Amino acid sequence: MRIAVDAMGSDHFPVPDVEGAVQAAREYGDNILLVGDEAVVRQELTKHETSGLKIDVIHAAHHITMHDKPSEVGRSKPESSVYVASKLVADGRADAFVSVGNTGAILAITLLGTLGRVPGVKRPCLSAIVSLDSRPVILLDIGANADCKPQWLLQFAVMGSIYAQSALGHKNPRLGLLSNGEEEGKGNDLIKEAGELIKKSSLNFVGNVEPKDVVHGAVDVMVSDGFVGNIFIKSLEAMGDLLFHLIRREARADMRSKAGAALLRPALRRVYKRVDPFEIGGAPLLGVNGVVIIGHGRTNALGMKNAIRQARLAVAGGIVEKIRQDINGINTEPE
Amino acid sequence: MRIAVDAMGSDHFPVPDVEGAVQAAREYGDNILLVGDEAVVRQELTKHETSGLKIDVIHAAHHITMHDKPSEVGRSKPESSVYVASKLVADGRADAFVSVGNTGAILAITLLGTLGRVPGVKRPCLSAIVSLDSRPVILLDIGANADCKPQWLLQFAVMGSIYAQSALGHKNPRLGLLSNGEEEGKGNDLIKEAGELIKKSSLNFVGNVEPKDVVHGAVDVMVSDGFVGNIFIKSLEAMGDLLFHLIRREARADMRSKAGAALLRPALRRVYKRVDPFEIGGAPLLGVNGVVIIGHGRTNALGMKNAIRQARLAVAGGIVEKIRQDINGINTEPE
Repeated sequence: MRIAVDAMGSDHFPVPDVEGAVQAAREYGDNILLVGDEAVVRQELTKHETSGLKIDVIHAAHHITMHDKPSEVGRSKPESSVYVASKLVADGRADAFVSVGNTGAILAITLLGTLGRVPGVKRPCLSAIVSLDSRPVILLDIGANADCKPQWLLQFAVMGSIYAQSALGHKNPRLGLLSNGEEEGKGNDLIKEAGELIKKSSLNFVGNVEPKDVVHGAVDVMVSDGFVGNIFIKSLEAMGDLLFHLIRREARADMRSKAGAALLRPALRRVYKRVDPFEIGGAPLLGVNGVVIIGHGRTNALGMKNAIRQARLAVAGGIVEKIRQDINGINTEPE
Repeated sequence: MRIAVDAMGSDHFPVPDVEGAVQAAREYGDNILLVGDEAVVRQELTKHETSGLKIDVIHAAHHITMHDKPSEVGRSKPESSVYVASKLVADGRADAFVSVGNTGAILAITLLGTLGRVPGVKRPCLSAIVSLDSRPVILLDIGANADCKPQWLLQFAVMGSIYAQSALGHKNPRLGLLSNGEEEGKGNDLIKEAGELIKKSSLNFVGNVEPKDVVHGAVDVMVSDGFVGNIFIKSLEAMGDLLFHLIRREARADMRSKAGAALLRPALRRVYKRVDPFEIGGAPLLGVNGVVIIGHGRTNALGMKNAIRQARLAVAGGIVEKIRQDINGINTEPE
């Protein structure tokens, strides 16, 4: 497998980007195409033992930052690492593209520049994969489309179910719509109308779900519009960060607490590992005509390696081809 | 102050309801009007020392459960404790009504039956008050209106700001719209349009805020539609519950962890206390023509007592009168 990796995406680029790529090359034996400023990337590679690994460096003259406007990068930075790396996928020279860079820019460049959308897909969407107290759950849309139509949510449901089945390995994945209550009749107009559409499909729709259901893995696929999904995932992160912050603070308050915290540290680490987004690393941009995995900008090397792992799962699962086949297929037609 | 308290609202009624009311009567010296099945309430009161406390029992023949449909309780249970207690407020025989019962039923009965809305209020809304890593923040709407118009959000902003100033004691409260990003241009159509309206008001609008900003108290008032607000608050709860669940589980895994957990317990309790909804107890239903405070059905006595405390703050702050004055006043008109 050949995976194009953006070496310039993270907040601390190229350090975790390159380190994670090296780890992935070693662990999976894949051909990693590291895309970025060649001098910078080669310099970074000298810090690692890479003999025997299939790592190629491909030069990209421009580098997108978190401050670049997605609507402008196509013109202002035509030779960005995002462009060059995703073009490798478009040209069939790589099987997948992985980046932890500016999400809006990745969306704009892959969608409007290099890859385009899968025929029939109305709106590509961003996903996240979480595994808090369950096997992995894919959440979508988490931010690409703030205002959605019911038909788009149906398509997100199709794409998410395909991903859960083919890349995450969940047979007949359970699908839920994120709502303000599980009961029939709950939801805003969008959710009610999307529910009616999804009910008529052959998807394994379990109905409306609340945040606690998602957290505990009552579904494998959770669908929402990009505004609600974004607030949902950021709320989980905010509360997780807050609690660990408060625990650290209170654990320093006195000698007894300090001693307790020292003893409890391995257990707390195990809890943190469960909610740590870098354990999964990245999630697919679904609906574009190629495998694109996006991770967190503040990633570490583990997150980068795991994002590359996610790309391997997506490629092996043939998700782009399956979306092409199913997006307008029989399973979204009224029965 | 005379406060009408629903004795039949909680999941374990009348136990925490009555105990919290007795505590409030003792601590604040208020006249508590305990409303419910008289025999049940009087029996429960015998478990407590109430001599010298101003507690009256007022009979209500019917009792609403969590399974009753809000749209039907007005007809099917006309003499419910919610009806009788809120009618006391409507008739000027009580200054406030407090319940931890069926939220939808409270909304329907107070709005359509006993109290009605403050003239000029388009849609009353539910609020929550959280104090996670900051002074109290009021969140609204958290569930009354799943689909909203921008003008309604402007009114929520006015009512929330009045409450934050007059009941929570925050001078010139900072107001934010919950959004999928802080930058101008982020948000769905509703949030963008509401933002334009709020900018033209004299409210202290700080712009769009993300979940982490709310959690850390960057605003005193957070406005959203009732669908998004409901998912936001439930996401915080779900993540908080999950983390404490995981910590308890991991803390039992081995002897070292058990010893650490025993030592760290007081520190973890302090953290739990910060995120415990019962510490605040309840929050106002805003826009109805009377002070109505709603708490959690799974409350304990502390939560009930604190819900009554919140009612005292709302009455003392004169919030209903202030909403009446300001809802269509100069501060929502374009400058």
